[in-house]
Amino acid sequence: MVIIDPWSTKSLDKYEHAFEKFGLGRFPEGYRKNLDHYLFKRGIVIAHRGFDKVYERILSKKPFINMTGIASSGKFHLGHKLDVDIFNFFASKGAKNYFSIADIDAYASRPNINSIKEAKELAVNTLSHVLALGLTKKDVYIQSNKEPTYYTFAMEVSKKITGNMFKAVYGHLDMGKIVANLLQYADILHPQLEEYEGKMPSVTGIGLDQDPHAKLTRDIAKRLPYDLELPGFIYFIHQKGLKETGKMSSSDPDTSIFLDDDLGSIKMKINKAFSGGRASLKEHRELGGIPENDRAYEILLFHHPNTKFVEGIYHDYKSGNLSTGELKGICADFLIRMLKLHQSKLKRTEKAARKIVYS
Amino acid sequence: MVIIDPWSTKSLDKYEHAFEKFGLGRFPEGYRKNLDHYLFKRGIVIAHRGFDKVYERILSKKPFINMTGIASSGKFHLGHKLDVDIFNFFASKGAKNYFSIADIDAYASRPNINSIKEAKELAVNTLSHVLALGLTKKDVYIQSNKEPTYYTFAMEVSKKITGNMFKAVYGHLDMGKIVANLLQYADILHPQLEEYEGKMPSVTGIGLDQDPHAKLTRDIAKRLPYDLELPGFIYFIHQKGLKETGKMSSSDPDTSIFLDDDLGSIKMKINKAFSGGRASLKEHRELGGIPENDRAYEILLFHHPNTKFVEGIYHDYKSGNLSTGELKGICADFLIRMLKLHQSKLKRTEKAARKIVYS
Repeated sequence: MVIIDPWSTKSLDKYEHAFEKFGLGRFPEGYRKNLDHYLFKRGIVIAHRGFDKVYERILSKKPFINMTGIASSGKFHLGHKLDVDIFNFFASKGAKNYFSIADIDAYASRPNINSIKEAKELAVNTLSHVLALGLTKKDVYIQSNKEPTYYTFAMEVSKKITGNMFKAVYGHLDMGKIVANLLQYADILHPQLEEYEGKMPSVTGIGLDQDPHAKLTRDIAKRLPYDLELPGFIYFIHQKGLKETGKMSSSDPDTSIFLDDDLGSIKMKINKAFSGGRASLKEHRELGGIPENDRAYEILLFHHPNTKFVEGIYHDYKSGNLSTGELKGICADFLIRMLKLHQSKLKRTEKAARKIVYS
Repeated sequence: MVIIDPWSTKSLDKYEHAFEKFGLGRFPEGYRKNLDHYLFKRGIVIAHRGFDKVYERILSKKPFINMTGIASSGKFHLGHKLDVDIFNFFASKGAKNYFSIADIDAYASRPNINSIKEAKELAVNTLSHVLALGLTKKDVYIQSNKEPTYYTFAMEVSKKITGNMFKAVYGHLDMGKIVANLLQYADILHPQLEEYEGKMPSVTGIGLDQDPHAKLTRDIAKRLPYDLELPGFIYFIHQKGLKETGKMSSSDPDTSIFLDDDLGSIKMKINKAFSGGRASLKEHRELGGIPENDRAYEILLFHHPNTKFVEGIYHDYKSGNLSTGELKGICADFLIRMLKLHQSKLKRTEKAARKIVYS
């Protein structure tokens, strides 16, 4: 009897077209084995561009730049948590940490935020979650609170891209989004300026669809009058929204679990979530469940820290031993435990976050 | 016998088309008489947009915002001096002073500056001249050295204009120039933020051709989520280059007097300058000179502080009593005296400027 390995790269064949389209290589098996975090083990990190130097630095315990950011545009959901989880992993490997609370970016690129003032309030919320997830004040910065060097650098970048290049990558020439992107290039590259760490390999986690942006950022790095390593990127597979179609969205509460969701609402949300299962329990027992379709399973896959446990769930569900209802129950219990702990920290971190944003 | 008043608004008829084109009003005669600076008296300030509130504040000795800037793109010439002269006048009237050394702007908008590093060195030069002309450290700021509030505000503006609006006013969508303009809007409007002076009338001196930019800045002021006075503008007539055609240019030494020109070169430069005069001295005596065409006269008109003296020159030249050669001699002597004094200050101010730019 062959035991199916749920983390096999076989399950990633559906991403092959994306690899081909973007010219990306799969995340190497060797890296996956040597990096001790479930996001690697479970194949959630599926590809990379220029991550090799960071990988070598992790093995040889040398510093590297750990850079990511969240556009603080609304409620903090499980998708955001993923970015913090991987950031925390790299931080534990002795990285130089740069976590951007991207409030100017959020304002400039989102139609629903009408002023920097609003964006700063949203930044307080995002930062309070980020701190509750274990980051410290010195790991983070607020875009609207940075040093002149950072802004000047963002503006220096403007001369290294043309309107045509921008339009080719992003499909538009929206003024706000131009500014948002200039800040993103600066976020990713500024830690290598001499005022910060100097030339050093860096890693930033992004979605596959953001690869054109990553490539442009690497092109820009070559054109700037500074000696910079090309920034490295790792690519996540996409955690779906709770509904059958569509992604997690801060503006639709039914699409995602938010980390400040009322604990009493979690069971209902998970019960309503898409499972893509069989027509009846009888069929489920006979044919087995389809974990790949089931959002409750996906939540465990992306967020439950115990890989053996998730592997067990996968097999029990696939074999039909575990029912959809039971799976939903396990998922809801896990989430309630996790969010209860998280929310117990939020009051304190909200205070700290407010102080940081308005400092 | 009718004495021609060289400062009569009659001589400005040639600008009538510009007034009509831009919908600008002439600078009122009453303002001209009450503002005790030769740039007003001599009609060099010929129009305004929304200057009334500042005018009233000057008369009632209330504060107002005095805002201008120089893109530090190269050598400092007489055209730049004009901006500093009018700024000094408003400063003497109790204004809140905001003089921008626009180094990021210069970098982002000029093809010949290849890095922020280069732009900062040019800023040292520009600032040393500005300080030698009497401004103090607290009157000026370097764009690349400002507070986060300023940059954040510049980026906030990005969402209040569309690519189409930008293209309509400037004729292009150059990424560097977009950034340069965002900074210019911020330069003009940020002094009215609560972190600075709060809502207050402001004045900025510009050329007539920059009026579409001024109008767009006023439009932006209306669309921002802050309570702002519409910024006021005064418009200068254009000081021509030393050659028959073309304007003063930092890249062509024969087009202008630079404030750090070798004193020994001044006589030659003025002798070579366009005079647009008569075919012979005999004709000059008979028909009179044409001060309106003569660059030596224009230098005195724009820069000699004694209005009675300049008026005398005008009449003597027009009547033919004063020869072109004599006029050139008077102009060269005046410039050499002025530049000698200026250059004696430059060594000290260069040191101060370097400290300010790299602080």
